[in-house]
Amino acid sequence: MPKPTIEAIDFFYLSNPQILDIADGSQDALLVRIQGAGVEGWGECEASPLVSIASWKCPMSHSACKPLSQSYLGKIVGSPEDIKALHHLARSQSLDLLQADHTLSGIDIALWDWLGKVQERPTFELLGFKQSFSKRAYASTLFGQTPEETYQKALEIKDSGFTAAKFGWGSFGQKDVQWDEDLIQAAREGLGSEHDLFIDAGTVWKENVQEAQQRLPTLKKHNIRWLEEPFENDALLAYSQLSKLNPHTPLATGEGCHCFLQAKNLIEFGDIDYIQIDPGRVGGLTSAHRVALLAQSKGIQFVNHTFTSTLALASALQPYLGIEEFELCEYPVSRSEVARAISPSTLNLNAGWVTIPEGPGLGVIPDLKALAPYEKTVEIKIDHELVFKSKPIL
Amino acid sequence: MPKPTIEAIDFFYLSNPQILDIADGSQDALLVRIQGAGVEGWGECEASPLVSIASWKCPMSHSACKPLSQSYLGKIVGSPEDIKALHHLARSQSLDLLQADHTLSGIDIALWDWLGKVQERPTFELLGFKQSFSKRAYASTLFGQTPEETYQKALEIKDSGFTAAKFGWGSFGQKDVQWDEDLIQAAREGLGSEHDLFIDAGTVWKENVQEAQQRLPTLKKHNIRWLEEPFENDALLAYSQLSKLNPHTPLATGEGCHCFLQAKNLIEFGDIDYIQIDPGRVGGLTSAHRVALLAQSKGIQFVNHTFTSTLALASALQPYLGIEEFELCEYPVSRSEVARAISPSTLNLNAGWVTIPEGPGLGVIPDLKALAPYEKTVEIKIDHELVFKSKPIL
Repeated sequence: MPKPTIEAIDFFYLSNPQILDIADGSQDALLVRIQGAGVEGWGECEASPLVSIASWKCPMSHSACKPLSQSYLGKIVGSPEDIKALHHLARSQSLDLLQADHTLSGIDIALWDWLGKVQERPTFELLGFKQSFSKRAYASTLFGQTPEETYQKALEIKDSGFTAAKFGWGSFGQKDVQWDEDLIQAAREGLGSEHDLFIDAGTVWKENVQEAQQRLPTLKKHNIRWLEEPFENDALLAYSQLSKLNPHTPLATGEGCHCFLQAKNLIEFGDIDYIQIDPGRVGGLTSAHRVALLAQSKGIQFVNHTFTSTLALASALQPYLGIEEFELCEYPVSRSEVARAISPSTLNLNAGWVTIPEGPGLGVIPDLKALAPYEKTVEIKIDHELVFKSKPIL
Repeated sequence: MPKPTIEAIDFFYLSNPQILDIADGSQDALLVRIQGAGVEGWGECEASPLVSIASWKCPMSHSACKPLSQSYLGKIVGSPEDIKALHHLARSQSLDLLQADHTLSGIDIALWDWLGKVQERPTFELLGFKQSFSKRAYASTLFGQTPEETYQKALEIKDSGFTAAKFGWGSFGQKDVQWDEDLIQAAREGLGSEHDLFIDAGTVWKENVQEAQQRLPTLKKHNIRWLEEPFENDALLAYSQLSKLNPHTPLATGEGCHCFLQAKNLIEFGDIDYIQIDPGRVGGLTSAHRVALLAQSKGIQFVNHTFTSTLALASALQPYLGIEEFELCEYPVSRSEVARAISPSTLNLNAGWVTIPEGPGLGVIPDLKALAPYEKTVEIKIDHELVFKSKPIL
């Protein structure tokens, strides 16, 4: 049998009718479809849709600043090694095209899905795992606008059967220490003392260690299992310094990584405890799986970062599905309209544990009929010639 | 007098009639023009033009993924602190928009030029320097296709009066060690033994320390002053490991940094000797100047990265013009057609030393008449509505 060829790659820009100025990253989406050998694969970029589309079809600037279409279209892919080789090629040929990392992330995910379907095997097997393990879900949501609202959200999460939850963003870290304590206390009271509670500062202190240090006593008092993203993703020195201060709070970060090496740097130099990887940003499953293996060898916990659709969630679990000691899974519970439309069902939860559908590929197929009303058309012309025109999803 | 307002920001996509599949990054350009208070400021992004334009006007995805226009347009800017505050705002509001760093780089440069012209002061003074020092130029060019061609290029550089030169990219590092030695030897013979010779590997070995190590004896034998970019920009561990191997060769890198923190990481953890910063990528003069001050405090040499126009070169010198011990300057000598059109003249060279024009702002004004033939028009529509349409440069 001849090796299957990438015959077409299409991008679908989906959006809620209205985008609100809030931290909810599930308000729009960019889906990638690979077609070839009579099979379709799907992936999702965690990225600005229009800008990523531009990086797919922009004119070449020089040999290390090419559009991603030059690396992927028409290529033959018959094995995991072929996907990895294309990933390597794309990063070299688009070295100076910054957005390319976010865009190739979705392409890479779709390729792993597609190859799984071509070979009728689940993606985690293609990645080299013999079995998949259930993961303990933590409900991931934003702080309420007030402590009272946060308390109500936490209560609902507890009542839904989760054994862990994370609250983040909103006004946390932007007022004073007492305000943050009030928010944390409300979350803890709603969730109950027996469950794991994580706090996500959303990079609010940039690289200011002192600001973060002031919150350590509060975090300790309420038994917070990790402090997430106190600083920007690249603030290695700040992470390393905070990790040595008392009272000790485990640190989690990494969602901002747009390549394997940034995650490696956090692991090697950041003294963090949890590395959080979004395959839709880090370079797809190819990079995410490398990070998971590195984390395992270094004794650091790997966790997915997902705040969007069930398709994104199913792909984000693949890189560590077969590693039993990586127990936790970020499980978004406040998905917006368009994210729910991508796949109405969520992954199965059983007493707070997630299992992955064992279909071929990722096991989740987007619901195109439900999505059609959310599609935005895109047209890009250079010197009056069409360089990109989106296709209807149906 | 009221503080001046940013009334308009426009992007101009310029390109050679043909883009060749070679490493020459000067084949196209993206200029940024700021207008306000009756004055124009200019900057240049070292970036894919179309993708950067998209990041200026894309729809908001969420509160941390906004187009750059939301951060800059209509803002009042009366002081360097105002420019820095806008930089901070833009990076927060576009945290998850990867391309934003490359785009805001050109905007930030144009703002420093504009404020200089508004206040009738050179940009380096706005950055806090009392005087500017001449820099010793090293002629920056690509390896020839063969050792013989490389030899001829080196001979020409020597005859032009330079006291230092850098050769890079092409086939270097992609064949065997003997080929690399032949290229280096040719460059050394052409340049002469009395001048400084630098070698740029263009990230060819990714993070493979062994590949780089095999070239160390050759580099030593030909008295190479630095090895540039043996690895990808984020390969901190590889840089640190190579720096400790014998025979010791000083390491230079950093052109790939798209924010201050990445440069800080190279300085703190990479054990490098030279940090090379392109303001058109790193976040403009705001970030580049921070890197220069950090490098000074850490005893690391700061050097510009520039391979394009005289406008880019003039802006790339500003962050360290006032720091006498940072002596070197990358000086492109193979600018392509469109880069020469941006500003036909190069910066003054005197016995191999560069001086900056002391006009207000950056001191270099693009030649719009010469540029007009190179302009490419861009139109972007979403749901059939125009979200971006380029303006004629004339």
